[in-house]
Amino acid sequence: MATVHPFERPLRIRFAHCDPAGIVFFPQYLVMINNLVEDWVSDALGVPYADLLGRRRTGMPTVSLHCEFTAISRMGDDVMLGLTVERVGGKSITLQIGCRRGDEQRMVIRQVLVFTSLDTHRAIDIPTDLRSAIERFTSKAPT
Amino acid sequence: MATVHPFERPLRIRFAHCDPAGIVFFPQYLVMINNLVEDWVSDALGVPYADLLGRRRTGMPTVSLHCEFTAISRMGDDVMLGLTVERVGGKSITLQIGCRRGDEQRMVIRQVLVFTSLDTHRAIDIPTDLRSAIERFTSKAPT
Amino acid sequence: MATVHPFERPLRIRFAHCDPAGIVFFPQYLVMINNLVEDWVSDALGVPYADLLGRRRTGMPTVSLHCEFTAISRMGDDVMLGLTVERVGGKSITLQIGCRRGDEQRMVIRQVLVFTSLDTHRAIDIPTDLRSAIERFTSKAPT
Amino acid sequence: MATVHPFERPLRIRFAHCDPAGIVFFPQYLVMINNLVEDWVSDALGVPYADLLGRRRTGMPTVSLHCEFTAISRMGDDVMLGLTVERVGGKSITLQIGCRRGDEQRMVIRQVLVFTSLDTHRAIDIPTDLRSAIERFTSKAPT
Repeated sequence: MATVHPFERPLRIRFAHCDPAGIVFFPQYLVMINNLVEDWVSDALGVPYADLLGRRRTGMPTVSLHCEFTAISRMGDDVMLGLTVERVGGKSITLQIGCRRGDEQRMVIRQVLVFTSLDTHRAIDIPTDLRSAIERFTSKAPT
Repeated sequence: MATVHPFERPLRIRFAHCDPAGIVFFPQYLVMINNLVEDWVSDALGVPYADLLGRRRTGMPTVSLHCEFTAISRMGDDVMLGLTVERVGGKSITLQIGCRRGDEQRMVIRQVLVFTSLDTHRAIDIPTDLRSAIERFTSKAPT
Repeated sequence: MATVHPFERPLRIRFAHCDPAGIVFFPQYLVMINNLVEDWVSDALGVPYADLLGRRRTGMPTVSLHCEFTAISRMGDDVMLGLTVERVGGKSITLQIGCRRGDEQRMVIRQVLVFTSLDTHRAIDIPTDLRSAIERFTSKAPT
Repeated sequence: MATVHPFERPLRIRFAHCDPAGIVFFPQYLVMINNLVEDWVSDALGVPYADLLGRRRTGMPTVSLHCEFTAISRMGDDVMLGLTVERVGGKSITLQIGCRRGDEQRMVIRQVLVFTSLDTHRAIDIPTDLRSAIERFTSKAPT
């Protein structure tokens, strides 16, 4: 059974995602999930990602990534990408991200992103407005 | 101290690798290491990668990937990519891959690749000619 | 004034499209229009692109491309991509493709694609079912 | 006969460049030539590209691009990329870029790049130190 996440977005696997073996080239999966996180920040957390990086000079680089590719995806497959917040730290968040096609799990990722100043590239505290929005996506409701 | 690997290749971080934050876009790191593995197969294992995929219809998809990004890389940085074979299984291999700039470790990856038939996308035994060449790159010499 | 095309699709400019200068990295524009042509074939011409390449072994490589980048696009911009068929030949088609943000033209492309057999990579006649569907998107109705 | 250029760099076509049809995905050709221009600026013009963009805040976006893809390239092909300066304007340059494998021309590109301030994204005069270095690569010597 595949995991259903509180934030999900459909995606069609495209020619541009695929390699000479006819399946998704794995770095393209990471581009897809980067786009998913961007949509989540803009549409679900309510902070336009371009504004976060541009005007607010706040980045969200990835510091740790653990991926299991459990089944292949081919050009034309309609898949669902989704995310859950596993942990909210002081300066970082841990996301569980999945790709499924119906009930078949294609990929599972655990990704740690840290908030940084784009001027210094040093870690900063999670901005207050983002923190409360993020906590609504944790797998267990905050108490 | 950064890890020095038995197979290494220098690389300059380019404009095309970098994102609006001015640092390497992390999926581009995975393209770089895919190229590194390709060079290792062609140049160190002695089997042209294009021939492996083309004529021999043998693929090496990634099934598991664990990345730690320990320091940022910027456009223009001259880095060294390297790999060591951690484990040789029946149908798969586990690689330790690193990116360093001099003594500074930038990234550490553990990647599991499985050998497959490109006709069925099913796992196959590691081809005999590759197996013996691969074992020369294990961190401990096989006994 | 920007050109409005008979086939259009909205797109948000993303982090992954942009370069260290904070604007679209021009090769990413070509990935976007490749996706647009794929959507047009699948959704407007009624032939699933994955089926065309996979089961029917028919490719549509680009043989000629002329791009004018008339204004920059930044992360977060909501743009419209569109296409018109300029010419239908025996084995190739010429497309006019544009990217606009409202009334502002961002890019204009003329692209020639040829139909090929993926077994021989040689040009073939445009498949009959595609030809009639394509002609409905010419700027002037065929007489 | 293929064109030989005054600035040339060898390149091996890789898995990551190729599409499900097993040939170079055309946007990847544009990434390759962007890297070529970067190498030319850094190594032949003598201005580190990262320094031009970073410290000097000077960009070189593409405003016009005309590509003819004359023969396909496959994974494993060893090709030569090269460039000649066709025209040096006040704020822009026109390059002729080619990809050949031995005597076989694979691609011909005419690319116009404009010099810009990365703070305003407006065109600026070609920096004096770059101008004289660029003129040494014109197809006809300046009089």
